[in-house]
Amino acid sequence: MSDANPSSASAASGPTAAHGQLVLVPNALDFGATPQELAVVLPLAVLQWAARLQHWVVEDAKSARAFLKRVHEVVPLQAQLQALSIVELPRPTKGRTAPVAPRAQAADPEIARLLSPALAGHDVGLLSEAGLPAVADPGAAIVAAAHELGVRVLPLPGPSSLLLALAASGLDGQSFAFVGYLPQEPAARCERIRELEGLSRRLRQTQIFIETPYRNAALMGALLDCAAPATRLSVSVALTLPGGWSRTATVAEWRRPSAGPRADLPDRLPAVFLLQA
Amino acid sequence: MSDANPSSASAASGPTAAHGQLVLVPNALDFGATPQELAVVLPLAVLQWAARLQHWVVEDAKSARAFLKRVHEVVPLQAQLQALSIVELPRPTKGRTAPVAPRAQAADPEIARLLSPALAGHDVGLLSEAGLPAVADPGAAIVAAAHELGVRVLPLPGPSSLLLALAASGLDGQSFAFVGYLPQEPAARCERIRELEGLSRRLRQTQIFIETPYRNAALMGALLDCAAPATRLSVSVALTLPGGWSRTATVAEWRRPSAGPRADLPDRLPAVFLLQA
Repeated sequence: MSDANPSSASAASGPTAAHGQLVLVPNALDFGATPQELAVVLPLAVLQWAARLQHWVVEDAKSARAFLKRVHEVVPLQAQLQALSIVELPRPTKGRTAPVAPRAQAADPEIARLLSPALAGHDVGLLSEAGLPAVADPGAAIVAAAHELGVRVLPLPGPSSLLLALAASGLDGQSFAFVGYLPQEPAARCERIRELEGLSRRLRQTQIFIETPYRNAALMGALLDCAAPATRLSVSVALTLPGGWSRTATVAEWRRPSAGPRADLPDRLPAVFLLQA
Repeated sequence: MSDANPSSASAASGPTAAHGQLVLVPNALDFGATPQELAVVLPLAVLQWAARLQHWVVEDAKSARAFLKRVHEVVPLQAQLQALSIVELPRPTKGRTAPVAPRAQAADPEIARLLSPALAGHDVGLLSEAGLPAVADPGAAIVAAAHELGVRVLPLPGPSSLLLALAASGLDGQSFAFVGYLPQEPAARCERIRELEGLSRRLRQTQIFIETPYRNAALMGALLDCAAPATRLSVSVALTLPGGWSRTATVAEWRRPSAGPRADLPDRLPAVFLLQA
């Protein structure tokens, strides 16, 4: 039986055996969109774990409760929703702010305190608003604290929009970087786009970045204005969602009027951008 | 209903409506290890799609047939296994060779020919030996060809060992790069480790890399010899598998004798390495 299965949780050994684990629970990719059937898009192991965990640290408590209600429709929760301990990570939350990549601050006592149930022997679930926790969101700090405190970290398998977009792009999947958000100010954004093209050429590396949905169209316009005609640009919109699509073409091809309907990005659906120069 | 569900395949619209789609089918992460229950580790949508597809392009035909037999135990295949068209991608295969990141060669007629069923209206599945196809394997070329030929690309949600290892590391998940394999020659490997530390510092970026399992111990030795004591090093072994684990500590901490059992990596299980300097 796999370690991804709750029944083997007691198999943890070594110095952390008396502690609970920090279980990284992936979410669906439908944040802000029409909710999906969780049984279709997440592995059963994730739903089984989610139904069993009674201590949670989450990006947003309200959406975590909504997630657990959807889990309950597939695998009944072991405790009443109201009886669960659900604590929010310190802000800022994913996608709502500019992207200063914070160093993980394992020593932060506020973060370490979130792990006190694990130190008392209870498994703790970490849940993000979409996809894998601690990737492109503020969850890494609590994972770092878990390692410092000797709490075992168990990542459950689930989707990442960044890697789905990479797979769907046909760009180099053997060498790539995720660089977060680009600057909003037009001149700085243009400069950053050219810098990413330079990195892509020099390091032979696909560059992946994201934007808050209502700025998707502005970023797309900047890419078509600032990037070189031969640069290959891939855009994936609403992956795993109804109407989702991926398209890869050179910037010159994207600029053609015939590319219009697709180059004109929706302002309420998540998008991932990738370039290879 | 989600686009990840086979029943909505007919919803494809635009110039590619007469074509089949290239469906990126994730595999479990148990390649070379004890097979897992697919129903537990992959979303149901993946198994439903895999049971329906009759044209496949795969990294390895033998392991693809084994995968489909396991799918059949959960969702019966719509056609006999022997009746399926299963064609291998041109070599080299994942993890077996040194890592020269190849540029996608969409113009390669051998690759484009693999998509002829899609041009004739049939959906074509793309399957790797582990995890997401076209990430850290040679599948990107056929995805690039699909975009050139106007064949819609549909990535199905599934696990990526690279991003699971990143999530489990507690290192910076808002800025990271995957750099493939390191050189095998000791002096070049040491130089590359220091180069990755430099990139991590300069670009504030977690660096992710892999090795073929039987060289895991040699790479770990090189990391402990060549990296700076304060560099944070994370290792994830056999993620989602029985006995899998993740550990993050400074190089100085890894070097201590008490780290022994874990610093001595297994030679038959997949590992992902990450550093942040």
